[in-house]
Amino acid sequence: MHDMVVNCAAYADGCRVSTIAVEDISEALKVPEQFVWVGLHEPDEALLRKIQQEFGLHDLAVEDALRAHQRPKLEEYGDSLFVVLRTAQMQDSRIALGETHIFLGPRYVVSVRHGSSLSYTEVRTRCEATPRLLRKGPAFALYALIDFIVDHFFPVTSALEERLDGLEEEIFGGEANRTTIERIYRLKRDLLILKRAVSPLIDICNRLMRFDRPIIPEDTRPYFRDVYDHVIRINETIDTLRELVTSALEAKLSLVSVGQNDVMKKLAGWAAILAVPTMIAGIYGMNFEFMPELRWRHGYGVVMGGMAALCGFLYWRFKRAGWL
Amino acid sequence: MHDMVVNCAAYADGCRVSTIAVEDISEALKVPEQFVWVGLHEPDEALLRKIQQEFGLHDLAVEDALRAHQRPKLEEYGDSLFVVLRTAQMQDSRIALGETHIFLGPRYVVSVRHGSSLSYTEVRTRCEATPRLLRKGPAFALYALIDFIVDHFFPVTSALEERLDGLEEEIFGGEANRTTIERIYRLKRDLLILKRAVSPLIDICNRLMRFDRPIIPEDTRPYFRDVYDHVIRINETIDTLRELVTSALEAKLSLVSVGQNDVMKKLAGWAAILAVPTMIAGIYGMNFEFMPELRWRHGYGVVMGGMAALCGFLYWRFKRAGWL
Amino acid sequence: MHDMVVNCAAYADGCRVSTIAVEDISEALKVPEQFVWVGLHEPDEALLRKIQQEFGLHDLAVEDALRAHQRPKLEEYGDSLFVVLRTAQMQDSRIALGETHIFLGPRYVVSVRHGSSLSYTEVRTRCEATPRLLRKGPAFALYALIDFIVDHFFPVTSALEERLDGLEEEIFGGEANRTTIERIYRLKRDLLILKRAVSPLIDICNRLMRFDRPIIPEDTRPYFRDVYDHVIRINETIDTLRELVTSALEAKLSLVSVGQNDVMKKLAGWAAILAVPTMIAGIYGMNFEFMPELRWRHGYGVVMGGMAALCGFLYWRFKRAGWL
Amino acid sequence: MHDMVVNCAAYADGCRVSTIAVEDISEALKVPEQFVWVGLHEPDEALLRKIQQEFGLHDLAVEDALRAHQRPKLEEYGDSLFVVLRTAQMQDSRIALGETHIFLGPRYVVSVRHGSSLSYTEVRTRCEATPRLLRKGPAFALYALIDFIVDHFFPVTSALEERLDGLEEEIFGGEANRTTIERIYRLKRDLLILKRAVSPLIDICNRLMRFDRPIIPEDTRPYFRDVYDHVIRINETIDTLRELVTSALEAKLSLVSVGQNDVMKKLAGWAAILAVPTMIAGIYGMNFEFMPELRWRHGYGVVMGGMAALCGFLYWRFKRAGWL
Amino acid sequence: MHDMVVNCAAYADGCRVSTIAVEDISEALKVPEQFVWVGLHEPDEALLRKIQQEFGLHDLAVEDALRAHQRPKLEEYGDSLFVVLRTAQMQDSRIALGETHIFLGPRYVVSVRHGSSLSYTEVRTRCEATPRLLRKGPAFALYALIDFIVDHFFPVTSALEERLDGLEEEIFGGEANRTTIERIYRLKRDLLILKRAVSPLIDICNRLMRFDRPIIPEDTRPYFRDVYDHVIRINETIDTLRELVTSALEAKLSLVSVGQNDVMKKLAGWAAILAVPTMIAGIYGMNFEFMPELRWRHGYGVVMGGMAALCGFLYWRFKRAGWL
Repeated sequence: MHDMVVNCAAYADGCRVSTIAVEDISEALKVPEQFVWVGLHEPDEALLRKIQQEFGLHDLAVEDALRAHQRPKLEEYGDSLFVVLRTAQMQDSRIALGETHIFLGPRYVVSVRHGSSLSYTEVRTRCEATPRLLRKGPAFALYALIDFIVDHFFPVTSALEERLDGLEEEIFGGEANRTTIERIYRLKRDLLILKRAVSPLIDICNRLMRFDRPIIPEDTRPYFRDVYDHVIRINETIDTLRELVTSALEAKLSLVSVGQNDVMKKLAGWAAILAVPTMIAGIYGMNFEFMPELRWRHGYGVVMGGMAALCGFLYWRFKRAGWL
Repeated sequence: MHDMVVNCAAYADGCRVSTIAVEDISEALKVPEQFVWVGLHEPDEALLRKIQQEFGLHDLAVEDALRAHQRPKLEEYGDSLFVVLRTAQMQDSRIALGETHIFLGPRYVVSVRHGSSLSYTEVRTRCEATPRLLRKGPAFALYALIDFIVDHFFPVTSALEERLDGLEEEIFGGEANRTTIERIYRLKRDLLILKRAVSPLIDICNRLMRFDRPIIPEDTRPYFRDVYDHVIRINETIDTLRELVTSALEAKLSLVSVGQNDVMKKLAGWAAILAVPTMIAGIYGMNFEFMPELRWRHGYGVVMGGMAALCGFLYWRFKRAGWL
Repeated sequence: MHDMVVNCAAYADGCRVSTIAVEDISEALKVPEQFVWVGLHEPDEALLRKIQQEFGLHDLAVEDALRAHQRPKLEEYGDSLFVVLRTAQMQDSRIALGETHIFLGPRYVVSVRHGSSLSYTEVRTRCEATPRLLRKGPAFALYALIDFIVDHFFPVTSALEERLDGLEEEIFGGEANRTTIERIYRLKRDLLILKRAVSPLIDICNRLMRFDRPIIPEDTRPYFRDVYDHVIRINETIDTLRELVTSALEAKLSLVSVGQNDVMKKLAGWAAILAVPTMIAGIYGMNFEFMPELRWRHGYGVVMGGMAALCGFLYWRFKRAGWL
Repeated sequence: MHDMVVNCAAYADGCRVSTIAVEDISEALKVPEQFVWVGLHEPDEALLRKIQQEFGLHDLAVEDALRAHQRPKLEEYGDSLFVVLRTAQMQDSRIALGETHIFLGPRYVVSVRHGSSLSYTEVRTRCEATPRLLRKGPAFALYALIDFIVDHFFPVTSALEERLDGLEEEIFGGEANRTTIERIYRLKRDLLILKRAVSPLIDICNRLMRFDRPIIPEDTRPYFRDVYDHVIRINETIDTLRELVTSALEAKLSLVSVGQNDVMKKLAGWAAILAVPTMIAGIYGMNFEFMPELRWRHGYGVVMGGMAALCGFLYWRFKRAGWL
Repeated sequence: MHDMVVNCAAYADGCRVSTIAVEDISEALKVPEQFVWVGLHEPDEALLRKIQQEFGLHDLAVEDALRAHQRPKLEEYGDSLFVVLRTAQMQDSRIALGETHIFLGPRYVVSVRHGSSLSYTEVRTRCEATPRLLRKGPAFALYALIDFIVDHFFPVTSALEERLDGLEEEIFGGEANRTTIERIYRLKRDLLILKRAVSPLIDICNRLMRFDRPIIPEDTRPYFRDVYDHVIRINETIDTLRELVTSALEAKLSLVSVGQNDVMKKLAGWAAILAVPTMIAGIYGMNFEFMPELRWRHGYGVVMGGMAALCGFLYWRFKRAGWL
């Protein structure tokens, strides 16, 4: 069970009072002015049901937290909140998505991590370093968690921007090949998946920064507005990338067409230059008895010269027309 | 008539009191605190009119239920509701659409199935297993029916996801052929039809979860919010698939162009390699009397060698340029 | 004038009291509880001005009804309504659009038909057959007219669906040709025109079903909601068809590209198979004096065999690569 | 200065009282119940400043009227309105855009024309012909001006419709060439520019027809609703044309692809028909000493017959496959 | 530190009272009716923290101003405003983006410039030249800054319009090549980036022109409406350009296809003209002993004539069909 409970502590006046066991939560809540922050990592049902009992969480929310695979959302259950967030990280140059569920009550905050994501111990440490802010209560812990998750989207979008830059260089640098198209498609797909993870956050943050209930104290709202702003920027970056990828594919397609045209012109040009002497040679290869040219002393030389001249003329014309 | 009436029972305090005949419905409604749940399957007009009389359903709603082929909708008639839903299932790897109409009153719920769809006996059994929840009344039965229908969309979207995965493999694995395009088109069409079945559900569930009338008791609303959430996820999956299918078709088209380019380069390259010796051979096939080379001892060998060298040179150049 | 006045009658308590002449309208309106229903077909200005005087219609509305070529709309003038609707029918497998203008007052309803459209005598007959409903007054006559017009869109969309089915078969059955593209374009155009005729109806019906004035009695509103529902379905069908036509054109384009690729591969393959023996024959057609092979007893046989073998080998390779 | 002041007159009770000089405006305004209508054409700053003083116009509005190149808009300054409109006309089969600025006060209306546009003298004449309507005051003059401007968009859209019809005929009639594409592009561009001129009018007219201030008397609002309706129709026509132009370009592109395919099939077919006898002739042109066929009496005839038969067979096959 | 503080002055009644040091700001604010205008250029943290203390700016806003790379936004902190704007200029025919942050309080305005952008000294000079307007207070300084920034977008959009004109000429003038496509892509990218900088300004200006707090006095609102109008125009120009660039790429693509078709027709035509005599010559190059034509006196002449006639006929047919 140690692996599942990452950390469980009581806080008063912005400072950690004590690290407690799950069993002692109700004890800790008896002390007024104190709130409890629990961090879980892929808990089993037994543990989650226990937590549910301690804090009185709603059935439907707990079931969501158990099953995972939810879309990002913010739900109110009486005076408590249930927030589902998607997390994203780069792992071996692929996007690894995770999920985090947060239960927020007037005197508790519970985070439940699913899938690959960074531990939130760092968030807790940072919060504990600024008791002035943590004093604002569980809502600030919620802000710190969301802020942490949102900030980890930036390296992901940067990685995707680099992939696009690489594709652009390939396309316009002329080294593009079949796999370029596959990679454009994969990038599009990744952007779409990322978009689905990020865009519901806009609405969630927007609602949090306007939330008119005591659970989100008024002086924490500018913080949620700040996160909202980051989300908007990430979302904008994704949209920009999506438009550019689409344009890049179109440009690639156009360049393929132009390239095809060039190849065909070259093919046509050289075919003509080779076909003309072949035809002439065919004519003088005929077996007619009376072909006066065949008896001329310089017939051969003249014909060869004529062929060369014709080919030269064709070469010059095609060159000038930009076909060769 | 047995085939048409799937089940008709009275419930009190969350438990089935008795299975009754259609004729005894009005009797059953006389008992206060009791509600009636009727399940019909493609009823004929006579039966439906009887049901209409028993519960006092509105003319227009009953006509809709008779004719079927409605779009999903939620309509209020006085203090009762009329809900039309589309159902979907995979049958022999094709999507089979059905339709279900639900009449909800303060003390009754009537479901009318049309077309291929699973029986709702399972829903009833599940509800009867949790009397604590069924005690909330007919609205909970409505929730259970909608939830059941919505949950059956998940296997359908999964099947479509698999079809897309298969298409992607074909496209990028190089085995794509003419039927790939037809299958992309069919997938697009199926997604469009599914979208039309699912997207009106968003509005229906949204209205149900905010419904401010006694017919939907307040403590059942979180359940409708839960269904709403599922609908949103299904809808999102469909949208994602639609975007990906479009991108896949574009990628396919680009790959065809690139492939065409490759074929043309190969064609041009080999044509040149074959045309050059043909031309030379033509020249030495001419019948001029004075062609000194023809008399040379090693003329033949030299010309053959020259041809081979030229071809080799061309081969090397085209290879380097990536044409062959 | 007989051609222009289709029918003009007074109704009381849901039953036709008498067929009257235009001149007697004011007389008929003096009887309380009675309303007048006038049906006109492309009236001239004189007649329309007379009608205007009898009912006190607004100048701008009458001018619209005279000029025709309006877009569908619903306008209030004091306590009366002016409705413009587009009608559509299939005529010789082409869509024939018409226009109908309806003036609705507390005690009159006037319909003005323009262009090709079915006569509304049928509507009147049907209304007179259900006095229970016609008793609701002129608003019910308005409903009956709109319902009739909307229901006549269904055969049109069915005809367009069939045209799409035909096109799909052509495209994927391989019989597509140049005119396929023209027919896709024509279908797109027809759908666009139909869309412009139908989509404003959504707003019109929506406003009618929420109309909070005595001119639309409350108990007729469910009927307008019913029409609204039909309009939504027609509109949805048109949208679906529009998306499918666009996809069909894309699929057609992709298939052309794929087909082109196939032709080119075949061309390239056969060209190679023919060019190789031509080159070899050319070589042995050279006139060198010292070509030892030419003197060999079986030279000819060996070369022919070699050619056949080479061609066979090429054929096998191209076949395996799917080029032939 | 005569060129700049087109007309300046005072009106009372719907009739022109007197034509006055700009200097006498303040005098005219002293007479109650009288309003002044000034028409200017590309005025210089001095004149406009004078007008500004007479009517007390706002600085920012006057600066806009001086600089021109504004987008259509409707602005309130205190109890007066400032309206900017774009005008369009066909000139030598090109669209000529102009701009008109209108200042409307409780007792004045000033129109300022920029660029090419018809004179508004006609509007004034028409208004003076219906004193019954002009009696409604300056707001009616505003309506008359906007109506005149909007009505002049109809010939422009008709001209563009004709251009599209011409393009369609070219595309599907098979006479399309390189300039067809350029003309499609130009049409798209013109439609885009026209759209930018027309679409802001929707909002302007919509606001005017709901304007709840005494400057737009209630009985003039139906007139603005009438203009609104025309604007909607023009806008719809433009949208329809835009969609059709896009579809036409797609159709053209598809036809080019299909045409290319046809050419390639023909090329491939004829190439095969010519290459086969060439190969055979090459074989019998070889110089082997022992080629028994060469000595046969009817060898030549047989080979020629065989060639002809092969070519005939190929021709028949390609014909049947639709390649030739 | 001189480089960072561009200018810092106190104003009273629209006139500059004195240029002051950052240290003396609090002193200056003690004088009632006076406001302070500070201009900073890429300040270090120490300076910004000092400014923060003097004016009591919010932590989050100051952090934004330090880190830069924000998206344009307008945030309220108590009775002060924080505005982030993007600036754009052409530098060596490339777009150089910058960022400006403005803090507005009841008695101060602080501008912080980041990246390349023109100095705002010019704005200050212009404001000081019209004390009548500057008297309106810091809000007018804010307007002057935004107006200056917005007006500098016009040359940028003009430069992009010129780039599009150049591309159009290339495309339809026939000089287009591979780099044309790359330049279209770059133009699209630049337009997208510019769009992201401009479009948030619409919302910012819209909110400022309706701002119902004393910090934006009512008589400055028409000025913000004026800026709003400029922003709308810039945004419209960008949208128009975006649509045209997309259309231009499509037109280019179509022209490439048409060009390819032309090349292929030419190729096919000339190939036929050369292949026919080659085949005939091949036939008369066969070595059959009994080929009567070979012995004819005029055999050679007749065959050559026949070849010429055939080629001429083909040339004429292809010419008429528009292939050559």
